[in-house]
Amino acid sequence: MEVFDTHIHSEGRSVEDLSKMVEKGIKIAITCAFYPIQPLFQETLIDLFRKLTIYERRRGERAGMEIYAAVGIHPRCIPPEYSRILEFMETNDGWVAFGEIGLETGDAKEVDVFREQIKLAKKIDMRCIIHTPRRNKEKITAKILQILNDLSFPEELAVIDHVTMETADEILKAGYHVGLTVQPGKLTEKDVYEIVSRFGAEKTVLNSDTGFSRSDMFATVKAAEYLLENGVDKKDVEKLAYKNAREFFGI
Amino acid sequence: MEVFDTHIHSEGRSVEDLSKMVEKGIKIAITCAFYPIQPLFQETLIDLFRKLTIYERRRGERAGMEIYAAVGIHPRCIPPEYSRILEFMETNDGWVAFGEIGLETGDAKEVDVFREQIKLAKKIDMRCIIHTPRRNKEKITAKILQILNDLSFPEELAVIDHVTMETADEILKAGYHVGLTVQPGKLTEKDVYEIVSRFGAEKTVLNSDTGFSRSDMFATVKAAEYLLENGVDKKDVEKLAYKNAREFFGI
Repeated sequence: MEVFDTHIHSEGRSVEDLSKMVEKGIKIAITCAFYPIQPLFQETLIDLFRKLTIYERRRGERAGMEIYAAVGIHPRCIPPEYSRILEFMETNDGWVAFGEIGLETGDAKEVDVFREQIKLAKKIDMRCIIHTPRRNKEKITAKILQILNDLSFPEELAVIDHVTMETADEILKAGYHVGLTVQPGKLTEKDVYEIVSRFGAEKTVLNSDTGFSRSDMFATVKAAEYLLENGVDKKDVEKLAYKNAREFFGI
Repeated sequence: MEVFDTHIHSEGRSVEDLSKMVEKGIKIAITCAFYPIQPLFQETLIDLFRKLTIYERRRGERAGMEIYAAVGIHPRCIPPEYSRILEFMETNDGWVAFGEIGLETGDAKEVDVFREQIKLAKKIDMRCIIHTPRRNKEKITAKILQILNDLSFPEELAVIDHVTMETADEILKAGYHVGLTVQPGKLTEKDVYEIVSRFGAEKTVLNSDTGFSRSDMFATVKAAEYLLENGVDKKDVEKLAYKNAREFFGI
């Protein structure tokens, strides 16, 4: 089973881990920007984006994995200033998306940073991987959809990530892709099965969010296999597991 | 066998890897500062030092490993400006050493950066983990010893790392500790055996340098076991494996 893991934090995985993922079939991944403490300086994130684009790609190559970078200001690590980050993001220097961006608590600062990044993405025609939080997921997801709608963000450029059975419907109706994150604490294989059975596979992408914390690196493969074992049409599983992602990210 | 791995780059290891190291007996480690691309901004290294001190320590705790940070400007990732880094290093905010600092090619810029850090370490009484390169190891080691001597750096505050049979003698005679890095491409278990047999274990510390690249995370434990199996006195092996390091780093 070939799998495109559309959202990992490769920095948190050793090169040996990446090799093991490749052995299981995860041959392509998007590594999303995140800084695990609050950065004091916006420059830190600019160098982080370079690190993801240059070094994580190279580390992926050593493991046999195609790693593409997504860059952006995650709502949990907004530095005090961020104007230079936005300028850098506009250079479009080697990444395939903005991500993960989005809202965590949905406070005013997060909304500002998110709106700025969405406006920029619209301006330069950049895909976005949009984080939704564990807490208040439905309320915050609604807020994100409102912002995208207010800014007339193109539907085909956004994947709303970490969706649940409760949030998928509204997102799909609004025309966006949904990211199914299968991981202990997020979706189970069975949840993925239920979402795909109910809403179809057309605008779904799959990911593990594996990274800095203890996690199941192979969760995407297991989910795809679970779907096959439970009678989901192979074509739909392929769409979920890699075809939609290749198309969405233009890879 | 308890082992104190005195030089790792924990950022390159997943939390599961750190747990496996703990299971093998590596319960304490120093994580050294390194940025795997050339940073454009000095602020990136300041946030990196905070990340090592705050977040890597926490990630170690989750794995059952005591991780202590060493901070400093590695000769392979010197940013264009570094005055603010030196100011931050003077705050002595939670790390146990400067490291890894040292010389790679030994050019003028590297020498400047190394000298500034050594002067600062002397001023604030900070231990230093000093890198020596693979290429021209003997010549560059001699240059490092000359700089330490010129600046009258206290012998008890420096470990010269990645030593070989050829460089250990001179370093020990000058009164510094030697760091034995056991890793494919660096020392073999047999090299460690020979160095300890020839020069004694008094001023030795052991490390793996495991991190961003494919590496043997358990190399330190294997080396300690090899020494025991080959008749090195248990007390000497303990000195090499953790006692000297605990004393040197004050842990």
